[in-house]
Amino acid sequence: MSDDIGAAAPFGDVLSASVKDRRSQILLGLDPEPATLWPDALEAGNGLPDGSLPRERAAAAVAAHCSLVLAATAEFCVGVKLQLASFERLGVEGRAALDFVVAAAKAHGLIVLADGKRGDIGISASSYAASLFGRTQTPWGDVDGLGVDAVTVNPLLGAETVMPFIEEARKSGGGVFVLARTSNPGAADVQDRELVGGGTVSDVLAGMVNEVGETGSSGIADVGAVVGATVPGHLASLRALMPTAPILLPGVGAQGGRVEDLGPAFAPGPAGGLITVSRGIVGAGTATDTAPAGAAAAAAEEYRSLAWSISAAG
Amino acid sequence: MSDDIGAAAPFGDVLSASVKDRRSQILLGLDPEPATLWPDALEAGNGLPDGSLPRERAAAAVAAHCSLVLAATAEFCVGVKLQLASFERLGVEGRAALDFVVAAAKAHGLIVLADGKRGDIGISASSYAASLFGRTQTPWGDVDGLGVDAVTVNPLLGAETVMPFIEEARKSGGGVFVLARTSNPGAADVQDRELVGGGTVSDVLAGMVNEVGETGSSGIADVGAVVGATVPGHLASLRALMPTAPILLPGVGAQGGRVEDLGPAFAPGPAGGLITVSRGIVGAGTATDTAPAGAAAAAAEEYRSLAWSISAAG
Repeated sequence: MSDDIGAAAPFGDVLSASVKDRRSQILLGLDPEPATLWPDALEAGNGLPDGSLPRERAAAAVAAHCSLVLAATAEFCVGVKLQLASFERLGVEGRAALDFVVAAAKAHGLIVLADGKRGDIGISASSYAASLFGRTQTPWGDVDGLGVDAVTVNPLLGAETVMPFIEEARKSGGGVFVLARTSNPGAADVQDRELVGGGTVSDVLAGMVNEVGETGSSGIADVGAVVGATVPGHLASLRALMPTAPILLPGVGAQGGRVEDLGPAFAPGPAGGLITVSRGIVGAGTATDTAPAGAAAAAAEEYRSLAWSISAAG
Repeated sequence: MSDDIGAAAPFGDVLSASVKDRRSQILLGLDPEPATLWPDALEAGNGLPDGSLPRERAAAAVAAHCSLVLAATAEFCVGVKLQLASFERLGVEGRAALDFVVAAAKAHGLIVLADGKRGDIGISASSYAASLFGRTQTPWGDVDGLGVDAVTVNPLLGAETVMPFIEEARKSGGGVFVLARTSNPGAADVQDRELVGGGTVSDVLAGMVNEVGETGSSGIADVGAVVGATVPGHLASLRALMPTAPILLPGVGAQGGRVEDLGPAFAPGPAGGLITVSRGIVGAGTATDTAPAGAAAAAAEEYRSLAWSISAAG
């Protein structure tokens, strides 16, 4: 509603309170692969009427899978990171599944992050922001967007293209995480390039994050950064360039990142680092062939407990 | 079908033949804004049953608007550039409208470019590629993606994150346009940074385009670049770094770019430059208060004729 504008608490403060309340910095990563869903979720796809399309069955199973994973693990997490590509590839039904999963995650009290890494020029950035956080005006009334709490944004097009996301986010107390140094080996191709005058491309991006963010009473800013947990060497130097930004840390587990190496993220407080784990939780039962829900819950609690202790020691 | 793999003609050759056949380098930009649709399109929204939701009416009107614009202008264009954000913000119905517009554009014989500027690490890049070009395997059969001919891709995460798009595109003779120097003023924040060892970030990206592209018998590569028509000074130097890449040139018209300045794009042939025009065609009637279809057709033909003559002079 338009009278919400300006009334929302800043994202950094909301995040900080939620991390302390749930004693967790874990973001459950959901990037459901139709071929490897939990067995009980397949029943949702099998149960549709004869003649249902593959994408209808797959979307129903994806939604059920996410529900089951959330039910098993939400209590150990502070939020959920939804990989938009995983839903988009299932078309209309995939979008309906995404809407369902956003609502399910909110019902568990989780902060919902849409990981879409969008980035475009001003007018199109505003459209993406409306699509994710806000609403679109039409001659027949406003159309609500996805309604998430936070998004990832790609800053290659510059600060002016990041600002529409931040402006829209602030209306509802939402947050924006700007890619600064991603977790993949090939990130070095562009992000690690050294610049005339000093620093790297990633340093420029971290400086941008620091400049556009606003820091509330919690000491955590409303604009964050994505820094791969796979490059702890970069983490300390990037943290120095953006002392209050919450840092989203993908790459723990399957990609080789270790929670033990992430101490610098927590310098401004327990909400200074958010650790996303996808396969390490959702697929925890695969290796041991145990029931997936129990193994996922145990893995989520293990990650939660480890991260919490690292943050407390920082 | 999997037996299509490897049989498709390379994108550069398809593009080149289509440009010559249609004597056009114009890509119609569709980024429909529900508040400013053509008047006749509003009837499609108004005509839905009582109780229809705003997003249902808006999506119906957006689909009708795109149909009308295509009917008026397709004969002067070689392709269409669809801004994905404009459809995503209308949710499930927006995705259905997008599917409809892709089919409508194909029926007019146009090359369909999805302008989503996606970019993510390998496994998620593959999901986006499946979503746009390919198909997703599920236990109930394959789910087809959007089925476009080409996409825009953001290379901030490195060449390894661009390759999944290229690999998927090649299976169906599709193309990928990598952001090299975008049309917005703020692009300078990151893309114009000068690097130790020489060149700029944009130069690195153009080098990447040149390296990963394959050039067929037409002399036009299957991997292209996005270079803003607003920065003709960059165009000549970037063209030298990627001599056979097709260059997508946004920013003509409302953003200030001029077709007359785009000669270097056409060095490898008439398909070396593709000029995207959105408001300059779709909104051509607004200023003069004429019927939108007639004004749009006249504007499209004017852009087509001018670009064709510049390319022939190059």
